[in-house]
Amino acid sequence: MTYTLVLLRHGESEWNAKNLFTGWVDVPLSEKGTQEAERGGHLLVDAGITPDVVHTSLLRRAVSTANLSLDVADRHWIPVKRSWRLNERHYGALQGKNKKEIRDEYGEEQFMTWRRSYDVPPPEIELGSEFSQDAEPRYVGEPIPRTECLKDVLERALPYWNDAIVPDLRADKTVLVAAHGNSMRAIIKHLDGIDDETISGLNVPTGIPLLYELDGNLTPTVKGGRYLDPQAAEEAIAAVANQGR
Amino acid sequence: MTYTLVLLRHGESEWNAKNLFTGWVDVPLSEKGTQEAERGGHLLVDAGITPDVVHTSLLRRAVSTANLSLDVADRHWIPVKRSWRLNERHYGALQGKNKKEIRDEYGEEQFMTWRRSYDVPPPEIELGSEFSQDAEPRYVGEPIPRTECLKDVLERALPYWNDAIVPDLRADKTVLVAAHGNSMRAIIKHLDGIDDETISGLNVPTGIPLLYELDGNLTPTVKGGRYLDPQAAEEAIAAVANQGR
Repeated sequence: MTYTLVLLRHGESEWNAKNLFTGWVDVPLSEKGTQEAERGGHLLVDAGITPDVVHTSLLRRAVSTANLSLDVADRHWIPVKRSWRLNERHYGALQGKNKKEIRDEYGEEQFMTWRRSYDVPPPEIELGSEFSQDAEPRYVGEPIPRTECLKDVLERALPYWNDAIVPDLRADKTVLVAAHGNSMRAIIKHLDGIDDETISGLNVPTGIPLLYELDGNLTPTVKGGRYLDPQAAEEAIAAVANQGR
Repeated sequence: MTYTLVLLRHGESEWNAKNLFTGWVDVPLSEKGTQEAERGGHLLVDAGITPDVVHTSLLRRAVSTANLSLDVADRHWIPVKRSWRLNERHYGALQGKNKKEIRDEYGEEQFMTWRRSYDVPPPEIELGSEFSQDAEPRYVGEPIPRTECLKDVLERALPYWNDAIVPDLRADKTVLVAAHGNSMRAIIKHLDGIDDETISGLNVPTGIPLLYELDGNLTPTVKGGRYLDPQAAEEAIAAVANQGR
């Protein structure tokens, strides 16, 4: 008796394509990202996986990825739950900035620290500034951050995991989570018990469903799960690692 | 103090365009229907209406209409609730049949009785036949019909109205309902207290949000509500009335 969890990182967004730090800025999928989301749906069909419920962040690129992939998989009609706790990492003052320019200005070490350290967040974003979300209706009344490191993401994602996702798994539902590179890394770190150092080297490809079978203790039966298109995942992981170069 | 309800009939589907009885057959929006859904989103924006929650049927054309219009309106992130009780009327054995052929075969009177009488359903669909939904996972365990008249639609929609939509209205949420010609007619009949004869003459245009302000007794402050594009609504209503000709 196992539980079935599928994690799906959204397809390429318009800002991924432009090499900008996106974070909580609500940019749409690119044309390529739309195709990736649809491919995600086809991979679900090919694997015979039928999600019973989907959880998404509040960001358009994850919402659209869920909508598009579920439509392809003929599961457009399942219940939908959403939370800012599944959002991408808040990139603080870096949001809206070009990755290459930040790297050139601050140097490789600082750049990689901000991108990949477990517990060093970028500088906080200025409230009311162009790429701040503090005034957006969807976050009113929520304890939203002004910047985040991966540790922060894990700490705000875990309550949602425990309170919203785990109950669906325990009810024997096949759960799809459509989220982001860093909210997925946080969940994967938690599931696979990955240490703070190792998680920095983990890249998550876009648009390729990652299947976990979890035992009664919600421990993965196979550490790291299984991508539904392993070869494409391997190639995409290499590409993600080269971002900002 | 009023409550805000917006009803939105899905845009044209591929079968609307082909003049087939659709009912519960889960056909996608046509290209025109996609544009209508997006126009619905623009009309919400122009009217300054910001849905806090959306209710949809389990059918793709309503789900997609909700997704597309909310994305345009920057409300893609709101909670989503779904129920088969908002589905289009089940057209029984007529599902998948050409409207003109049915009219030619059975005559104008029988055709109009099936299309527009309040309490005469078409013949039941055969279980397991091509256009029956009895085996679809989304309906498992639900008391779904094999044919319906409008009275049947009202009777199965009302419990959802009372148990799911009214609580959202009472919680002061702006509620969007993305549904179908006949599930909307059922709700409108209930809200406006329209009698069984008169409701048969009421047509609902596709893709134009219909705004109701409801008082503390959930009675419309303006009977019939207000279409957000009244002129387009008037033209579209005339076109719907000519279906099957």
